[in-house]
Amino acid sequence: MLEHIAFIGLGNMGGPMAANLAKAGFKVSAFDLSPAAQERARAAGCSIAKTPAEAAIGADAVISMLPNGDICESLYISNGLLAALRPGTLVIDSSTVSPATSRRLATAAGKHQLRFIDAPVSGGVAAAAAGKLAFMCGGDADTVEAARPLLAAMGANIFRAGDHGSGSVAKICNNMLLAVHMIGTAEALALGVQNGMDPKVLSEIMLKSSGCNWSLEKYNPFPGVMEGVPASRGYQGGFMVNLMLKDLGLALEAAHSTGASTPMGSLANSLYALFRQQEADGGNLDFSGIQKLFYKPSAG
Amino acid sequence: MLEHIAFIGLGNMGGPMAANLAKAGFKVSAFDLSPAAQERARAAGCSIAKTPAEAAIGADAVISMLPNGDICESLYISNGLLAALRPGTLVIDSSTVSPATSRRLATAAGKHQLRFIDAPVSGGVAAAAAGKLAFMCGGDADTVEAARPLLAAMGANIFRAGDHGSGSVAKICNNMLLAVHMIGTAEALALGVQNGMDPKVLSEIMLKSSGCNWSLEKYNPFPGVMEGVPASRGYQGGFMVNLMLKDLGLALEAAHSTGASTPMGSLANSLYALFRQQEADGGNLDFSGIQKLFYKPSAG
Amino acid sequence: MLEHIAFIGLGNMGGPMAANLAKAGFKVSAFDLSPAAQERARAAGCSIAKTPAEAAIGADAVISMLPNGDICESLYISNGLLAALRPGTLVIDSSTVSPATSRRLATAAGKHQLRFIDAPVSGGVAAAAAGKLAFMCGGDADTVEAARPLLAAMGANIFRAGDHGSGSVAKICNNMLLAVHMIGTAEALALGVQNGMDPKVLSEIMLKSSGCNWSLEKYNPFPGVMEGVPASRGYQGGFMVNLMLKDLGLALEAAHSTGASTPMGSLANSLYALFRQQEADGGNLDFSGIQKLFYKPSAG
Amino acid sequence: MLEHIAFIGLGNMGGPMAANLAKAGFKVSAFDLSPAAQERARAAGCSIAKTPAEAAIGADAVISMLPNGDICESLYISNGLLAALRPGTLVIDSSTVSPATSRRLATAAGKHQLRFIDAPVSGGVAAAAAGKLAFMCGGDADTVEAARPLLAAMGANIFRAGDHGSGSVAKICNNMLLAVHMIGTAEALALGVQNGMDPKVLSEIMLKSSGCNWSLEKYNPFPGVMEGVPASRGYQGGFMVNLMLKDLGLALEAAHSTGASTPMGSLANSLYALFRQQEADGGNLDFSGIQKLFYKPSAG
Repeated sequence: MLEHIAFIGLGNMGGPMAANLAKAGFKVSAFDLSPAAQERARAAGCSIAKTPAEAAIGADAVISMLPNGDICESLYISNGLLAALRPGTLVIDSSTVSPATSRRLATAAGKHQLRFIDAPVSGGVAAAAAGKLAFMCGGDADTVEAARPLLAAMGANIFRAGDHGSGSVAKICNNMLLAVHMIGTAEALALGVQNGMDPKVLSEIMLKSSGCNWSLEKYNPFPGVMEGVPASRGYQGGFMVNLMLKDLGLALEAAHSTGASTPMGSLANSLYALFRQQEADGGNLDFSGIQKLFYKPSAG
Repeated sequence: MLEHIAFIGLGNMGGPMAANLAKAGFKVSAFDLSPAAQERARAAGCSIAKTPAEAAIGADAVISMLPNGDICESLYISNGLLAALRPGTLVIDSSTVSPATSRRLATAAGKHQLRFIDAPVSGGVAAAAAGKLAFMCGGDADTVEAARPLLAAMGANIFRAGDHGSGSVAKICNNMLLAVHMIGTAEALALGVQNGMDPKVLSEIMLKSSGCNWSLEKYNPFPGVMEGVPASRGYQGGFMVNLMLKDLGLALEAAHSTGASTPMGSLANSLYALFRQQEADGGNLDFSGIQKLFYKPSAG
Repeated sequence: MLEHIAFIGLGNMGGPMAANLAKAGFKVSAFDLSPAAQERARAAGCSIAKTPAEAAIGADAVISMLPNGDICESLYISNGLLAALRPGTLVIDSSTVSPATSRRLATAAGKHQLRFIDAPVSGGVAAAAAGKLAFMCGGDADTVEAARPLLAAMGANIFRAGDHGSGSVAKICNNMLLAVHMIGTAEALALGVQNGMDPKVLSEIMLKSSGCNWSLEKYNPFPGVMEGVPASRGYQGGFMVNLMLKDLGLALEAAHSTGASTPMGSLANSLYALFRQQEADGGNLDFSGIQKLFYKPSAG
Repeated sequence: MLEHIAFIGLGNMGGPMAANLAKAGFKVSAFDLSPAAQERARAAGCSIAKTPAEAAIGADAVISMLPNGDICESLYISNGLLAALRPGTLVIDSSTVSPATSRRLATAAGKHQLRFIDAPVSGGVAAAAAGKLAFMCGGDADTVEAARPLLAAMGANIFRAGDHGSGSVAKICNNMLLAVHMIGTAEALALGVQNGMDPKVLSEIMLKSSGCNWSLEKYNPFPGVMEGVPASRGYQGGFMVNLMLKDLGLALEAAHSTGASTPMGSLANSLYALFRQQEADGGNLDFSGIQKLFYKPSAG
């Protein structure tokens, strides 16, 4: 029975995820260093712990949503959190980390008779708030099933990607592909416009043709084509370039360590890094802002 | 009234297009140099002309489906076909050519009081046979409307992309984007597999996530994931690498002439050219065969 | 005997080349549309012709230095200049054009019993003024020898690259490689600086190591490292980005038409095009200005 | 006074380096796990230690030449070698590692009052044997000076790159640039040959023009152009693709961690990874073998 849940990391994603767990009736003991994040979690019905250990010891499940793999490994391994948990505890790491980190966490968890899955998410802040995240889970099928009630309280799609680490693999493959078709879409729209086309008309045609992709359909990067997307509000909000670069870094690290060649993914990474250098505050813009590398309205 | 139609160029695409016109009740006078193509057209109900001029002079509309822009310009301009047509004749060029070629044809047609549209297609040989092509039309709205009964006999979607040349622009932008997400998809699948994932599971996850795109959904390049696509039959059939390279050449030419920067499109072009050199008979394989650059089953 | 020389095209390169011929004692009849260019040529000892034909008819040799291949083909072929020359006249085209253009000119010249070589140059405006250009000649060995006295008056190195067109091939291969190592050098210097190194020290080390290349040795793109180069004067003067893009366009056209794959050259082209869009007046900056894509002093 | 030297890591590079130290009169206590490497070192006049600690404790200087940064950090930090050394001992790490690793080693050495420099080398196995390596040193100037007698026994050029980590920065910047101009050279030569040129003639012209670079001058990748280089012996020997990929991985890691954009370097990395997958035993071929991606003699 999963009743007492520890939630560690209450940022833009973790905060609403913990809130949705509390809303679904779980007893959530939450930890974050930020007083503001603590306050929001308290208001959402979580109790606030002073340390990760206070939150986690004795819990039925521990969920973490942390900024990177070093912090995860430090929390769980170097600082001994895994060693302090009751055997059988379910540990779900939803942080976006390298497959290697996920596998090291899984191995360490196994030594302490814990049940572990890596379960990174896709969908962004809006999906986190709405409880509509997708979870990409790595671990044995039984453990993924055991985690399902918790994941279902936070998300709409729960995929088992494979063994430990596969959740992280699926996440970084997906986001690398996303970066590639976002830039490809931005290039194609700029090419069309520079050759005299209306970006709306071109978008409509490609949506019904073989150029169709998620960036074009849900997240058109050209200003003025689609309402309600970052391109229509100066690329504010959304999925920041800094986060895309973090994910691309994980993808390229996984490629390097397994000998895979990813020329398009690598170029996408270089173009995002270049964009961040060229554009004031570029790292904090939405990743569809890459459109500005290829087309500047004033230069039209 | 469009009754007598000249159709010039009866290859893999033009042949079934002419046949569908005949089937729809138009009187089609067709021309091609190949006796086999002539024979097929005759069997489909077309009459066969000995020269393009014999087919076209006196026709209500002329449709061409030729291998490249040089041949189009030679036929219509240098060899004087436009000059020989009756003023008011509708001229539809469905060949995939550069926007510059389309505009030169339009200008030349205008001088002879002809009505011209560029109307390249997407959908491939299967769609041509089934009368399900998409037409991307460049020209004034009245002329596109005038052409609609003919296009509707051959296709399912008729888009007006904009003024003369815009049909060609839309076609090459779309196909450049297609090349980019096909290679991105192939890279992502290979990266996943080299990190231990099942390509089917990874495909299913990305289909429901932000990595989704036409290549993944309709044309999965990884062998064994999807039935009925070239990847499941050794990359035979489909849309040849040679044709993709032709279209990418047109896209890069349009980028060069308008100062557009297309790093992902250019890299896609280089990778297809490299694939053609590395792989025996690579130019005649389907364009999803690019998967082999990134993953060799035997090397798995 | 080469005595009367027609020189067509008196721009930044052609002007000083014609002047050097006059200085060496040749009787130079020069043509250009620009009155200012005419005036400079007159001052340098050339006589000024009102038309290319007036300059060229009866000359022992015709030299052209024109902006692009279309203008060359128009002058020599469509406008009939080749047809108007005396059989045996030596025709030297020093314009940077595609190998295909060079071969068409050679073929047309041959039909009129003229002796033709393509002889594009390297070295830039300074070398043109100093008579220190390098000529890359395509044509039969006898004709290259026949041209040597003229070329020697304008240049310091005369290479026979091979048959007709080979001069143009050598030129575009060289400049593509130049673009690649210039950008590679800019990237390496920026990477070093962003990791704490002094660009001068890093340049000195790489000059004596395997990273050494012409851009690093003669034309360091990082501001403040080398005196007397464009990087030390805000990238003014030198070899303009617009011209590099023209040459890269010719290289990629030659690659496309022969099926060659040039991923690094294509990426260099995309990055220069991107630079031209990002940077105010970027097309008129020296090509070493690409450094600014990778490192902005203010951002340091 | 530097008299007793510990040398740890006696591979293809470390073996001859230790031998040159012994030859120069230093008392070298050497360690390696491989019995064959031990035997060669003994024959060259070194004494063989059973553990790194046995070699290093009490030595005046410790030099390491190890396969990667993890092994270095494990040896010096986790396994406590630094803690066991006498204060004031000179520690020279010549392994190619990330700047971050070099800085962590320097910091750890500082805590134990040791003098540390990172001093990776360039020049390869032949230069190691001949005592002609170049050392790129990171550390304070006094320590670099103190190390000079040792380095001079193994190398011909000793550069101080800057503070701790700068030796590693210089090494990876240089090798990234080397990869870029090697591939650029291979592309340019293939483009020329596919357009009808003799690769020898094209090489000669570019050597005297702005395309000149170390790969073209010392290490021509096209078979049959230059004697005594890997291209003339089936790309056997030399600097292996696997090692170039290791160095490119370090460069891209340094770029990622400092936000630098290296599109050409990243593409070079992708192309080498692709080459290793396409070519049987490609990882063990010399890095100039990348020529085979662009030109296959049999396909000529």
